[in-house]
Amino acid sequence: MAENFVESITNMEDDFAQWYTDIVKKAELVDYTGIKGCMVIRPAGYAIWENIQKELDRRFKETGVENCYLPMFIPESLLNKEKDHVEGFAPEVAWVTQGGGETLQERMCVRPTSETLFCDFYSHIVHSYRDLPKVYNQWCSVVRWEKTTRPFLRSMEFLWQEGHTIHATAEEAQARTEQMLNVYADFCEEFLAIPMVRGRKTDKEKFAGAEATYTIEALMHDGKALQSGTSHNFGDGFARAFGIQYTDKENKLVYAHQTSWGMTTRMIGAIIMVHGDNSGLVLPPRVAPTQAMIIPIQQKKEGVLDAAYALRDRLAKTIRVKVDDTDKTPGFKFAEQEMRGIPVRIEIGPKDLANNQAVLVRRDTREKLFVSLDEIETKLAELLDTIQSDMLERARAHRDAHTYEATTMDEMKDIADNKPGFIKAMWCGDRACEDAIKEQAGVTSRCMPFKQEHLSDTCVCCGKPAKTLVYWGKAY
Amino acid sequence: MAENFVESITNMEDDFAQWYTDIVKKAELVDYTGIKGCMVIRPAGYAIWENIQKELDRRFKETGVENCYLPMFIPESLLNKEKDHVEGFAPEVAWVTQGGGETLQERMCVRPTSETLFCDFYSHIVHSYRDLPKVYNQWCSVVRWEKTTRPFLRSMEFLWQEGHTIHATAEEAQARTEQMLNVYADFCEEFLAIPMVRGRKTDKEKFAGAEATYTIEALMHDGKALQSGTSHNFGDGFARAFGIQYTDKENKLVYAHQTSWGMTTRMIGAIIMVHGDNSGLVLPPRVAPTQAMIIPIQQKKEGVLDAAYALRDRLAKTIRVKVDDTDKTPGFKFAEQEMRGIPVRIEIGPKDLANNQAVLVRRDTREKLFVSLDEIETKLAELLDTIQSDMLERARAHRDAHTYEATTMDEMKDIADNKPGFIKAMWCGDRACEDAIKEQAGVTSRCMPFKQEHLSDTCVCCGKPAKTLVYWGKAY
Repeated sequence: MAENFVESITNMEDDFAQWYTDIVKKAELVDYTGIKGCMVIRPAGYAIWENIQKELDRRFKETGVENCYLPMFIPESLLNKEKDHVEGFAPEVAWVTQGGGETLQERMCVRPTSETLFCDFYSHIVHSYRDLPKVYNQWCSVVRWEKTTRPFLRSMEFLWQEGHTIHATAEEAQARTEQMLNVYADFCEEFLAIPMVRGRKTDKEKFAGAEATYTIEALMHDGKALQSGTSHNFGDGFARAFGIQYTDKENKLVYAHQTSWGMTTRMIGAIIMVHGDNSGLVLPPRVAPTQAMIIPIQQKKEGVLDAAYALRDRLAKTIRVKVDDTDKTPGFKFAEQEMRGIPVRIEIGPKDLANNQAVLVRRDTREKLFVSLDEIETKLAELLDTIQSDMLERARAHRDAHTYEATTMDEMKDIADNKPGFIKAMWCGDRACEDAIKEQAGVTSRCMPFKQEHLSDTCVCCGKPAKTLVYWGKAY
Repeated sequence: MAENFVESITNMEDDFAQWYTDIVKKAELVDYTGIKGCMVIRPAGYAIWENIQKELDRRFKETGVENCYLPMFIPESLLNKEKDHVEGFAPEVAWVTQGGGETLQERMCVRPTSETLFCDFYSHIVHSYRDLPKVYNQWCSVVRWEKTTRPFLRSMEFLWQEGHTIHATAEEAQARTEQMLNVYADFCEEFLAIPMVRGRKTDKEKFAGAEATYTIEALMHDGKALQSGTSHNFGDGFARAFGIQYTDKENKLVYAHQTSWGMTTRMIGAIIMVHGDNSGLVLPPRVAPTQAMIIPIQQKKEGVLDAAYALRDRLAKTIRVKVDDTDKTPGFKFAEQEMRGIPVRIEIGPKDLANNQAVLVRRDTREKLFVSLDEIETKLAELLDTIQSDMLERARAHRDAHTYEATTMDEMKDIADNKPGFIKAMWCGDRACEDAIKEQAGVTSRCMPFKQEHLSDTCVCCGKPAKTLVYWGKAY
C-alpha cells in the first residue's frame, strides 16, 4: 500500500546521488532557490539541526565554552594578515563592494571562517595571563564560493559553529584541540549513531594557517568518506601575525596560542547517507524531531482518535510524539512517516483498543511489537534506546566491512577501483607519495588515526620505511 | 571601596549617551571592530541574547511556529519584485558583486529582511488550501547600511528573528499579526520587566510593503521611545507580486495572505536603558545569565570557600549561580557584579557561617537580607520573583510619570521641549498633520494604541475632528 509514494525514490543501489537528492526533497528537508548553491532548510531539516545544536552546545558548555557573535564581514586588509590563511580562502570568498548606495573604499568579504576576526578581537581583550584562556564559540552561517554544490554536503552558504580559543601555553592549546575533537566524535557516536575514525590530517590536507588539524571521518553507505568535524591547533602563528601578546607571570611579553574547531549542517547529510534506506530517511531516535508518530487505524470509528490523543498526551511527558490525524489513508501515512525517518510508528485501532494494546513498528528494521497500553511508556523508551544502539552497531559493522588493507600499490588501486570504502595503508610521510597515491588510485588521505596499527614496514607507494598508518578513501 | 571601578562610568544625568556607551563597554557586552557599525557581542552580552532567544522561541512554538533557514543573499531581481518594499530597502543594502574570483552577472544583496525570499519559497510549496497555513520563523542576522550606529540600538548588522506566515484568509492573517504582537508584548513585560504600549503604526511609519504594521513601544530612562517589536499584515500584496496562489476548497485559484514579525538584539539596549543605573547594568532575574553571585568574605579563612562551593551546588539545582573565587577584594567584586547587573549577590564569611546565615543583597535596591542557610533556596527564589515584579512596576511607574497629554500644539511643543517622555494627543489621521507635528515639535508618531482614550474632540494640530489617539515621542 502507498507504494506510489515509495516508488518515487530512486534506489540507492541504482544511483546513490539521485537517491540522496530524492530523500532531501521528498522528506522536505530542503528547497532549492534561485541562488546557485544556496538552499532553504525547511522545518523538517532545520528541526534536526536544532537538536544537533542543542546537544552540541550543551556538551560545549560542559567544557567551559562561552558563546559570542562576531560580524559577518571581514575587511580585505584583515583577511590578508595571515599568509597561509588568505591563500587558502581568498579564492573562494564573496565580496561586498557596495553599500548604502556607494562604492566601498575597502571591499569586505562575507566570512568564510572567522579566525581573522577572532584574532582582531582577542588582540583587544587579551593583555595579561589573567585574561587567559578565552574559550569562545559562535553559531552562524559562512559563505564559500563552491563550484559544485549539493544540499548539506557542500553549499555556498552553510550553517555551523566555529569555536576559537586562546591560551597561555602550547600544551593548553594542544589539550583543547584534542578535547574538542573528542567532543565531536563522542557526540556523533552517541547522538547521531555514526561511528568515527579519529585522527590527524596530513600537512597537505590541514587547514590553511594551522600547525596541525585533527579530524573525525565517517563512512557513508556508498563507501565514500565524509570529513565530519575538524579541530585545529594554530600554535602561535596567528598570534604573531596579529600581534596577540600577553604579559606572563614573570612579567614578560609573550605570544598566545590558539585553536579553532567546527561542525556544520553537513552532519544532516551524514545522517541521510549512513542511515537512510530505499524508503527514505531513517533518523536515530536521539536526534529525531519526532520520535514516534501515532497513526490511528479506522480513525472514524468512535473512540479511536480520542484514544490516540490520550496516548499522545501520556507519551509526550517523556518523548517527542505526534498524532497523524489527517484524512489520508493509513497506508499513505505509513509511507510518509517512513520517508521522514520517524523512528517508531504507533498503530492504534479498534481491535488494539479492545485488546488494550498498541502496535509499535520500528522504522529501521520494520519489526512489529504488540505492547500493552499499561506499560507502553517503558516499552517505548526501551525500544528507542535499542534502535539508537542498533543503528550505531549497524553503521559500525558496515564501516568495518568496508575497511580494507593494502600493502602494495596494486592492491591499493584494485581496492580503490572495486571496493568502495576506507583503505588502510602505511605511508612514509612524504608529500610526493601522497600525491602519487591520489594520482594513481584516486584516493586522498583521510587521516592518520590515533589508533595506529602496524600493517607493514614500508610505505605502500615508495617502499621506503613507513612512518604511520593512514586511512585513505574517496571523499565528499 | 572599589569606587574607582564605579567612578569610571559617566552619570546618566550628565550624559545619557555616554553612560550607555560606558555600560556597554564596562559590562563587557560589546567590543568595537574595525568595521563601522559592526560589533562583537561578547559572552556577557550574547548570554542575554541566548536567554531571550530560548524564551521567545518557546513562546513561538507554543503557538505552532516552526523554524527554518533561508539564504542570506537576495538576487537583485527578486528584491525588485514588490515595489514599495524595494523602495524602502534598496537604499540601505550591502551588495555582493564578486564571488569566487569573478564578477557576478547579477549582484545580490545581503538580506536586510527576508520577505522576498520567503515569498519565493512559499510560491514553490503552497499549491492547495491543504498546504496552508505555514507559520515559519528564522533566527539570523541581517544587514542595513546605517549612517549613524550605536551598539544594540542601531547597527549595520544585527541579530533577530523574523517570522513569515502565509494563510488562506485575510482574517487568519490579521489574527496571526495581532497574536504575535501580543506574544512580544507579554514576553517583554513578563521576562524583561519592560512595560509596553501596544498599538498600530500610522501609514507613514509602517513597514515597506505592509498593509498594516503593529508595534510595541517602550519608554527609556531618558524619556525617549524605543520601538521594540513589530508585526506586519501584508494582505495579499506580496502574494500578488510573487504570484502565490492556491486552490481553495471550491477549486478556485486565489491569492494567499501573509504576515511577518520581528524582534532584535536591540532589546538588550532596552534592558540597559530601562533598568540600568549609575553603577551599571541591572538585569531582570528571568533574563540574567547569572542570577546570583556568591562572594566569599575572608575567603582564605578555613571553611569559607568550601561553604561557598557547597552553597553554589545546592542553589544550582534551581537557579543560575556562580562563585566569584578570584583573588580580588570583596569590594572590587561587589562593584564588578554591580556593573554586570547580577540581580543578587550572596555574601558568606566566617561570621555568617557561625550564625548559619548568608547575606543577600539586591542589585536593584541594594537592600540587604540576612537569611538562614536552612531556608535560603526558598528565600532566594522569592527574592528573585520580587525583584522581577518590582523592576516591572518601577519601569511602569517611570513610564506613566513621563507620559503627558497635549490638546494644543503649544502644549505639545512645550512638553516636547521640556519633558522627555510619551505625549498622548488626538490626531485627525492626515499625513500633513503628522508631518507638521514632527516639523514643529520634533516628535514622531509612535503608535495608535489599542487602548484608546478620548482626550479631546479635535486634532492637536489642525483642529479638525480627531479620529484617534496617538502616542508621540522622540525615538531611538
